[in-house]
Amino acid sequence: MTIKLHCFGESGHSYKAALALEMAGLEWKPVFIDFFEGETRGDAYRRDVNEMGEAPVLVDGDTRLSQSAVIQGYLSEKTGRFGGRDAAEAREILRWQFWDNHKLSSQAGMLRFLMNFLPEEKRPAEVIDFTKNRLTAAYNVLDAHLAGRDWIVGEAPSNADLTCCGYLYYPEPFGFDRAEWPNIDAWLTRLSDQPRWKSPYDLMPRAWRAAD
Amino acid sequence: MTIKLHCFGESGHSYKAALALEMAGLEWKPVFIDFFEGETRGDAYRRDVNEMGEAPVLVDGDTRLSQSAVIQGYLSEKTGRFGGRDAAEAREILRWQFWDNHKLSSQAGMLRFLMNFLPEEKRPAEVIDFTKNRLTAAYNVLDAHLAGRDWIVGEAPSNADLTCCGYLYYPEPFGFDRAEWPNIDAWLTRLSDQPRWKSPYDLMPRAWRAAD
Repeated sequence: MTIKLHCFGESGHSYKAALALEMAGLEWKPVFIDFFEGETRGDAYRRDVNEMGEAPVLVDGDTRLSQSAVIQGYLSEKTGRFGGRDAAEAREILRWQFWDNHKLSSQAGMLRFLMNFLPEEKRPAEVIDFTKNRLTAAYNVLDAHLAGRDWIVGEAPSNADLTCCGYLYYPEPFGFDRAEWPNIDAWLTRLSDQPRWKSPYDLMPRAWRAAD
Repeated sequence: MTIKLHCFGESGHSYKAALALEMAGLEWKPVFIDFFEGETRGDAYRRDVNEMGEAPVLVDGDTRLSQSAVIQGYLSEKTGRFGGRDAAEAREILRWQFWDNHKLSSQAGMLRFLMNFLPEEKRPAEVIDFTKNRLTAAYNVLDAHLAGRDWIVGEAPSNADLTCCGYLYYPEPFGFDRAEWPNIDAWLTRLSDQPRWKSPYDLMPRAWRAAD
């Protein structure tokens, strides 16, 4: 049975799950979420799809999961891919996934939303500057970690890489310039050179009308 | 050998790990972090303790772990406590831990810092209001989930509970009033009635000088 992923192109959290599905070679299809029309915030979505009101949500037969890292872990159990070689690597992967959810993707996703998908007159300047500063600290941590390393954990791409890259391939401006972070830049190139890698908008349908 | 937890009282992320250690009945001791003097932001801490520059860090023999949810998972493997009854419960626990790190504790911790541990003239009003609004959405999700449930996952306290409560027992004001969220309020009471439960400042030494 084909795996379904409730998602939309602009969601970097969805991208993490979509990229894991695609790079593992699984058969899957996106179920489009009309995010900018409020679908995830509606009662029907909370009742029938995800009480957290978030994307992505994976449906595989009777299994329904949300949170991209939980989805990635489930797919690793299914395929043996991207989950690390042993318990220590698995814990290290999880450690970077939690760091990402707290310090990197959560902030980058919010900032990109505020800077691109809100009307200009509604963009909160102080929040934008504050979040940019927090993200600079996060980029510093990741760039320092990647010095002398090909991948975030171990000797091969893992869910740690497929998580931390979540927002970093998007074209919309949110204060992230790859050229300023040479180790992150080289790592993103290494990852996008992998077999079956695709960019977010090549994997999932876009929800932002202005993109039509 | 006694387990060590690098931590400080004001850190709700540290509290999640300390509470799991204490409620599982493990022998452990806190290693004090002088947070407000910048210890976690210094080069020595990043080099010797945690490259992410964060608390808590657990040291158990040769094992060194950061990220409270990873620490909790490790302790569950060690003790059989709080990790859920099966793979489905374990995934559901992890799902709430990720949700918490993205939407609840990360925001509550930052907001409490801004409202209490920054000098009044440096408190960013727009960021504070913005974060309060985001947290209201998170409290709504948790309160709705707890309607008719004793615990976040399954029929017993789990790491999901020990995670989501991370900042909710602190006395400092950050816009959270238990009385406004009846299901959260009842759940916090249920949890604090459990054997071996302790409040954050009874488990870990405080770092905030004004508290002396």
